[in-house]
Amino acid sequence: MADIKKLEALARLVRYYILLMTTEAQSGHPTSSLSATDVMTDLFFSHLRFDLKDPKNPANDRVIFSKGHASPLVYALYAAAGAISEKQLLTYRQFGSVLEGHPTPRFKYAEVSTGSLGQGLSVGVGMALAITRGPVSRFLPASAHSSKKLDTKSDSKPEELRAGGNPSTTATPRDHDLPFIYVLMGDSEIAEGSVWEAAELASFYKLSNLVAIVDVNRLGQSSETMLGWNLDVYKARFEAFGWKVYEVDGHDMAAIDKVFGMVGGLDGGKPKVILAKTIKGKGVSLWEDKDGWHGKPLPKEEFGRVLKELGAVDQSLRVQIAGPVNSFLPSSALLTPQNYSNFGDPVRESQIKTINNKPLFVGSPSRIATRLALNYKLGEEVATRKAYGEALAQLADQDPRILALDGETSNSTYSELVRGLTPNQYIEMFIAEQNMAGVALGLSKQGFVPFVSTFAAFWTRAFDQIRMSAYSQGNVKYVGSHAGVSIGEDGPSQMGLEDLALFKSVFGSVVFCPSDAVSTAKLTAQAATGEGIYYLRTARPATPVIYSPDENFEVGGSKILRQSKDDKLTLVACGVVVHEALKAYEKLLENGVHIRVVDAYSIKPIDESTLRRCASETENLVVTAEDHYFDGGLGDSVLNVFADGKVRVVKMAVTKMPMSGKPAQLLNYEGIDSEAIVKNVKGILKDLKNPLVK
Amino acid sequence: MADIKKLEALARLVRYYILLMTTEAQSGHPTSSLSATDVMTDLFFSHLRFDLKDPKNPANDRVIFSKGHASPLVYALYAAAGAISEKQLLTYRQFGSVLEGHPTPRFKYAEVSTGSLGQGLSVGVGMALAITRGPVSRFLPASAHSSKKLDTKSDSKPEELRAGGNPSTTATPRDHDLPFIYVLMGDSEIAEGSVWEAAELASFYKLSNLVAIVDVNRLGQSSETMLGWNLDVYKARFEAFGWKVYEVDGHDMAAIDKVFGMVGGLDGGKPKVILAKTIKGKGVSLWEDKDGWHGKPLPKEEFGRVLKELGAVDQSLRVQIAGPVNSFLPSSALLTPQNYSNFGDPVRESQIKTINNKPLFVGSPSRIATRLALNYKLGEEVATRKAYGEALAQLADQDPRILALDGETSNSTYSELVRGLTPNQYIEMFIAEQNMAGVALGLSKQGFVPFVSTFAAFWTRAFDQIRMSAYSQGNVKYVGSHAGVSIGEDGPSQMGLEDLALFKSVFGSVVFCPSDAVSTAKLTAQAATGEGIYYLRTARPATPVIYSPDENFEVGGSKILRQSKDDKLTLVACGVVVHEALKAYEKLLENGVHIRVVDAYSIKPIDESTLRRCASETENLVVTAEDHYFDGGLGDSVLNVFADGKVRVVKMAVTKMPMSGKPAQLLNYEGIDSEAIVKNVKGILKDLKNPLVK
Repeated sequence: MADIKKLEALARLVRYYILLMTTEAQSGHPTSSLSATDVMTDLFFSHLRFDLKDPKNPANDRVIFSKGHASPLVYALYAAAGAISEKQLLTYRQFGSVLEGHPTPRFKYAEVSTGSLGQGLSVGVGMALAITRGPVSRFLPASAHSSKKLDTKSDSKPEELRAGGNPSTTATPRDHDLPFIYVLMGDSEIAEGSVWEAAELASFYKLSNLVAIVDVNRLGQSSETMLGWNLDVYKARFEAFGWKVYEVDGHDMAAIDKVFGMVGGLDGGKPKVILAKTIKGKGVSLWEDKDGWHGKPLPKEEFGRVLKELGAVDQSLRVQIAGPVNSFLPSSALLTPQNYSNFGDPVRESQIKTINNKPLFVGSPSRIATRLALNYKLGEEVATRKAYGEALAQLADQDPRILALDGETSNSTYSELVRGLTPNQYIEMFIAEQNMAGVALGLSKQGFVPFVSTFAAFWTRAFDQIRMSAYSQGNVKYVGSHAGVSIGEDGPSQMGLEDLALFKSVFGSVVFCPSDAVSTAKLTAQAATGEGIYYLRTARPATPVIYSPDENFEVGGSKILRQSKDDKLTLVACGVVVHEALKAYEKLLENGVHIRVVDAYSIKPIDESTLRRCASETENLVVTAEDHYFDGGLGDSVLNVFADGKVRVVKMAVTKMPMSGKPAQLLNYEGIDSEAIVKNVKGILKDLKNPLVK
Repeated sequence: MADIKKLEALARLVRYYILLMTTEAQSGHPTSSLSATDVMTDLFFSHLRFDLKDPKNPANDRVIFSKGHASPLVYALYAAAGAISEKQLLTYRQFGSVLEGHPTPRFKYAEVSTGSLGQGLSVGVGMALAITRGPVSRFLPASAHSSKKLDTKSDSKPEELRAGGNPSTTATPRDHDLPFIYVLMGDSEIAEGSVWEAAELASFYKLSNLVAIVDVNRLGQSSETMLGWNLDVYKARFEAFGWKVYEVDGHDMAAIDKVFGMVGGLDGGKPKVILAKTIKGKGVSLWEDKDGWHGKPLPKEEFGRVLKELGAVDQSLRVQIAGPVNSFLPSSALLTPQNYSNFGDPVRESQIKTINNKPLFVGSPSRIATRLALNYKLGEEVATRKAYGEALAQLADQDPRILALDGETSNSTYSELVRGLTPNQYIEMFIAEQNMAGVALGLSKQGFVPFVSTFAAFWTRAFDQIRMSAYSQGNVKYVGSHAGVSIGEDGPSQMGLEDLALFKSVFGSVVFCPSDAVSTAKLTAQAATGEGIYYLRTARPATPVIYSPDENFEVGGSKILRQSKDDKLTLVACGVVVHEALKAYEKLLENGVHIRVVDAYSIKPIDESTLRRCASETENLVVTAEDHYFDGGLGDSVLNVFADGKVRVVKMAVTKMPMSGKPAQLLNYEGIDSEAIVKNVKGILKDLKNPLVK
């Protein structure tokens, strides 16, 4: 039985910290933090199982603060747990402090960056999937999906901390040994459709260790939410989406403690949501349930008066968070090195490198790449999207951490080949790209290497989640098929023409646009072995294989496909347009015009040194050609290389409103086919001979 | 009573056309079209009120084919209505044909472009809002929100077409005179969160003239949907979201006709959804309820056999769609010139220009602009976001077509000033940016000029809807506040650092990034009066007013802020960084270094001629500085101007992982403040003096 009085004392301490740090910073969201204080205090100190000394321990429960603006609450809770000092709290929102305005992984207990609302539940789905379902289910104890009571003798008993000399709260026992994922959401963010994408998938995959908490404080930033305190409607919605719903007075500690006890089991095979009816600004009469105080700190002169309202606060109170239920079982549920032998391939075991029981990637990038069986023959016509699927299936077969996720387009993106070869490593995400991106982030945070694919055009749907995955230091590989007008008859809605602009603008991203099957396969391996946010662009039509299987392809690399001493300019292309460039080369050669042709398969980073050398050897003339809109693609990357003003760059890209038609017709219409290139090159070279132009 | 036999004959004709055009094209989605054929045939020929001769008639009902891949069904229906010929159908998906793979407004009966799934319902919400609620409610007859039976004497009786000599179907009478909005969705797309964003808002605003139809054919592109034929779950979800739900066998014409009759009233004040249980590929035994046929045409050799299955098809059958119930009332519900006098300002009436009863914008751009009361004093500190709100409130007060929509951030973006001055012209959209963008498109298609605002960062959430609004020839003005690291303490999740890249990549867009209150106000007026997709970027911090109220600001313009004959380089900046540039100018001047300073407030199109002239007058040296990531922003626009290789461009932009801190600290950290500019300029000029470098 939890010590309710003590939890209430802890909540007062947490409220004190919230007020202290936001009043000091004169910035932040105290009212949104105070409404969720009681609920989260009970969770942290009566139910959570988390090893503060090892935040990455796979046996830990996870807490995602989807309502990231409640960051004062986050830091206050960890301060009450003794993980950060009161002095540190005073650095809140200051330049250089890890206690940022919205949590980021610079604060080591933040699982991901939050603050763009409605994304946390997707991350939670990803983390819960990593533990209980699909790809890792083979590792799970039989009990994971049942309500069978397990031996709980190995429960790590929470220790008391010396500071303050207070006894710690004892965590409520569990009837199972599976880590739980808790996601705190605000009620305003429930309006985001991505929440319902996550909700529908969580129930579809029966994620019974996922618990959402909705802080229903009624008030949004500027006005009341659509539903106010109408908990019945929230309940009906979550129930209709397949969740088990619990309602609670979010300021009644005993009731809160009871409800967290109820959601802690695995019965029912349903995800659970706690609807907490709360008061925004709870504890501060000036603020309670009042509009107009969102994101506003207490005036400094009010601080003393408000503290009196809070009641006695024991600033020395510290309570340890209970440790994981069983540090062995959960690690067996994740992909630790010991589990590799399950796959029956002794070669793999020998390649494994581990540090502190955490698996590193198997082999070096080049080893992985060379282990791809590439049976493509030069000149054979293979779509790059197909080569992607064939490579990923092989990689997934070699490394169980590699997953394929797809938004109901697996038979177009060819991620279906993973589903065929290693079905446990394929997760169908249905048509909900925002959630797909968020789930991928959650999976990556649990040690997986998710490749997520859909049409390039539809990644625009998840741009917010993609940028947040970069801020979350995620390890996600985005793949966009059907790029450009070369898809043909389906028309503009299906054409990825902004995708390079999108992914280039993502912080720290790597962007690939390969032109043939071999380079696509090799770059898929590069993405698998590299850390961080990668984007691989593939195309719909079959194009000739132009590389032999022993060629290497690197981040920041390129290939010179045609060159001579007589080259008059350098033609830089990527993707399907490389083949137009090669055709243009032949036609120009027939006319005695020599040009250099470069395949710039790495768009970001771009191969600066090769491009500079080529330009200097070809009279400082460069033409770029790509199946992407004029702004933000290959051409702009090349322009940046030559910003020093010594090279003339002519960009060829999609500039007219695209429409349906055959791929060749559309490449011609947009002026990016071989004919347009030949015409353009001839025009440029003719101009040069004209002294008036030069 | 509808003639069911005749409707069934029409459905056979529609199926025939679907097969004809996709078999001829050997491309397209016949199976997804066939499942919805019976439902849509009944809607078109027994319930719809639409004037084929005047598709833009405001009294028309509207049909949005959200499942855009069912384009063969779209064209087949209009062919059966006599609007397009059988010969035209054979151009389906061919280059140049208006019958594109997914419908676009190149086909004059397509309200918007569809094909990126889950967006149509938002457009429908916008169109229904335009007619029944909020801003236009003052124009509505009292009956619009009641179930009172109106005089239906003025019903336009459908006429028979001569072709084929068949009698036309008589449209079911209505008990009101309000245009209805019908949205056909596939079951797969219901997984998109944007559908639920639209659903929650539709019930919140009680859009009783909105009818969604879900074609529940069980099969997605690659596999079964999450819910299959489990209509009970769909029902529970829509009911929980506040909709009235009707279920029907989607191939029982009598039942379908009955259900459309039931949804046609305004009782209940709820939006309505028809869940049609259907069979994918219905009518073709080879395809019926079979996986693996999504998006695949019939092999040509199968055509004859399959036609026999269909039964007798009367190729000469043509039935006219019934005309609008009352062509006067609905036009009074829209913003026709006659209604301007309601606003009590005779000046406005005199400015109105109309063609065929359709309102044009009031006055010329410059007239609107000069009618802004700009009381800003030079040097006064005003945030551009605030100037935006102040300008928009004035513009909205002058023209009732101007609306402000906001995603629960109106007190940050300052769109709250519209809510304050003309509350009928403000629509709260809550935290659901995708739906907000879709609704804005729908409103713009009904003649409104919606300004939609949220934090610049959160427009990434709606990128897919934004690009589709361009393909839909929408007239939407997107506004993003809190751009850049200059927002300060809130941290990276709230910083718009990819927004210029996003909006520049949108087809045909105009992108503004003003630096002070005057330019922001004037550019807001430019966006209001210009046609198409505009983006206006505003900033959080207050910055000095640098322009007098009589300055003009144009699409594609810029301002030279500092210049002399001795300028050594041109510094091009936008937004808050303009003020850093001006400070840098002063510091450099103190050191005897003259530079030119340009405010490039129009990022797309960029002011090529001014920039070229400045560069040529400043030794072909240009520095760009912006509060945006390195890729896709102002710097890249400037690089494109100087692609001819005669000018050296040095870009300064955000390149380090942003974090919390004070605005000045962050500008400094990222190297885009005046100090960094001074250092950079001095370094460049020093290099130039070094003969080894030059």
